[in-house]
Amino acid sequence: MAVDRLNRSYKLVRRPQGMPAAQDFRLVEEAVPEPAEGQFLVRNHYASLDPAMRGWMDDRPSYLPPIPLGASMRAGTIGVIEKSRNADFPVGRWVSSHNAIEDYSLCDGGGRTRLVDPDGVPSVTNYLSAIGTVGMTAYFGLLDVGRPKAGETVLVSGAAGAVGSLVGQIAKMKGCRTIGIAGGAAKCARLLRDYGYDVAIDYRGKSYPELIAAIGEAAPDGVDLQFENVGGAILDAGLVTLNPYGRIVLCGLISQYNSEPYPLRNVWQLIAKGARMEGFIMTHFFHRGAEALPDLTAWVGQGKLRVDEHIEQGLENFLPAFLRLFEGTNEGKMILKLT
Amino acid sequence: MAVDRLNRSYKLVRRPQGMPAAQDFRLVEEAVPEPAEGQFLVRNHYASLDPAMRGWMDDRPSYLPPIPLGASMRAGTIGVIEKSRNADFPVGRWVSSHNAIEDYSLCDGGGRTRLVDPDGVPSVTNYLSAIGTVGMTAYFGLLDVGRPKAGETVLVSGAAGAVGSLVGQIAKMKGCRTIGIAGGAAKCARLLRDYGYDVAIDYRGKSYPELIAAIGEAAPDGVDLQFENVGGAILDAGLVTLNPYGRIVLCGLISQYNSEPYPLRNVWQLIAKGARMEGFIMTHFFHRGAEALPDLTAWVGQGKLRVDEHIEQGLENFLPAFLRLFEGTNEGKMILKLT
Repeated sequence: MAVDRLNRSYKLVRRPQGMPAAQDFRLVEEAVPEPAEGQFLVRNHYASLDPAMRGWMDDRPSYLPPIPLGASMRAGTIGVIEKSRNADFPVGRWVSSHNAIEDYSLCDGGGRTRLVDPDGVPSVTNYLSAIGTVGMTAYFGLLDVGRPKAGETVLVSGAAGAVGSLVGQIAKMKGCRTIGIAGGAAKCARLLRDYGYDVAIDYRGKSYPELIAAIGEAAPDGVDLQFENVGGAILDAGLVTLNPYGRIVLCGLISQYNSEPYPLRNVWQLIAKGARMEGFIMTHFFHRGAEALPDLTAWVGQGKLRVDEHIEQGLENFLPAFLRLFEGTNEGKMILKLT
Repeated sequence: MAVDRLNRSYKLVRRPQGMPAAQDFRLVEEAVPEPAEGQFLVRNHYASLDPAMRGWMDDRPSYLPPIPLGASMRAGTIGVIEKSRNADFPVGRWVSSHNAIEDYSLCDGGGRTRLVDPDGVPSVTNYLSAIGTVGMTAYFGLLDVGRPKAGETVLVSGAAGAVGSLVGQIAKMKGCRTIGIAGGAAKCARLLRDYGYDVAIDYRGKSYPELIAAIGEAAPDGVDLQFENVGGAILDAGLVTLNPYGRIVLCGLISQYNSEPYPLRNVWQLIAKGARMEGFIMTHFFHRGAEALPDLTAWVGQGKLRVDEHIEQGLENFLPAFLRLFEGTNEGKMILKLT
């Protein structure tokens, strides 16, 4: 019985300065909690590791409250219900929820919790990638915030990443020309081979003017829509190469999460071009999941959307797996297998 | 006859470095041109002086081509048709057009040229302020780009300026709470007394954290819409005080026009808040003038919209009058009387 086992939990015990370090966390073992009326106990099988988690470690106002010191690292997980006192969530079912990096979590079925069907998809982990938050981020960010039109040129930074790889493919389905920016020759090869990008730009070793020149060469008619996952010089360059009436969708600024903010200088271009820069967070779109999930499920099932997942093993390996997101050494959506 | 007179023309002869200087211009006298078939000759009576003209003096790509060295300073003017070989533009009629700082201009009726009626308005100069480009800038920028809802809090920088003073009044008509930022006690008094702002913030002498605190105090429930005319630290602070789903309308960045761009650090806030920052230029809206001009004309005629104009005398005084825009010593829309 689960109650005889201990619950390993990955706690935040110190606010990271810059890149998170081992001393910022502690792995503890606690009693497995018992569900109260209305609650159920989930054995977490897989956790989603995302760059945005870095922001949750800081003690500053954001779209979610900071993780309190001493609390478990918040994370999206999928797992199996082991005990239940909630009739809507029966024992044995797979469930996707916002839990934590821990073996067991108590849930009440609120928020973004939903039952998922492992038989309907190539892999149950897809519910943490293309058929989960990552897929919906690409879907709503591109289609709802960016509103691409067929024939437009779409520039994606972090184009080989979990979100970027999906954005490029969806933009292509919608009839756009796609340019991907990524770091290194191997990733650029994957952009062209695996994600259907028309052009790949390797930002490594490129100065800011060289970046502008490379985008200009890749997009001789300018960029209509930039989907930004990286920020910094890539965003500043994108403001220059953007077309009149262009749009920049701000999804993430991964280059900034462990450092002082990059000083952006080209915001004036938004005026000169009558252009729009708009941020979004998935929590504002969760209530609209039913608009995106049927499309995403169908595209994944039919093989129209290539989904790469990078699965690391072991709850205790949270930190090195998480840091790979910032090293850029993951190939696909980073997932931590907890079982 | 006009042909016997000379045409004084204010030419750009050198690209300004930073603040424009006398040596960047030359006042020349030339023959008054003769209209060809389809053209007409306008005696320019008043010219609109706007911060955006500083950008036209630079040799860099923007929404309008740079003014060529040796050419007259481009400016919106109103004047009277003296000779005409275009049946749509008869002699004696007042006309509003994009001409130059010169006594006489040749027009062909294209672009933004339109006949105006001096009898229908308190002053014919209103066609260079509330019933012209400035009024349409406030109207479309606030209503079309910003889309305020009744009950929202609207923050306006450069709030005592030509555009800002109108934005505050229109936002108030639409049921918004209005906060104006301006420089100095006298301007702040005008915000409250003349333009109906609910709160006035004097940015002078305030550090960046003090600016954030002052906006926070003026807007305890946060800012829903910021109408930005100034840029720099005010824009960076506004990103902090903006509400979720907030909007920043970028109309101008007057603090930046004679200096290196301010390095903006808080763009991340657009993501955390699911917020939008959008620029616009009036040239993208001119074709929709018929949507705005009836409202603006009625509001001015009925005294619902207070219009302040600051009229300086003499074509030869272009430069000192223009520089007052950056000193902030004008009280109302800056207009140069050429006759």
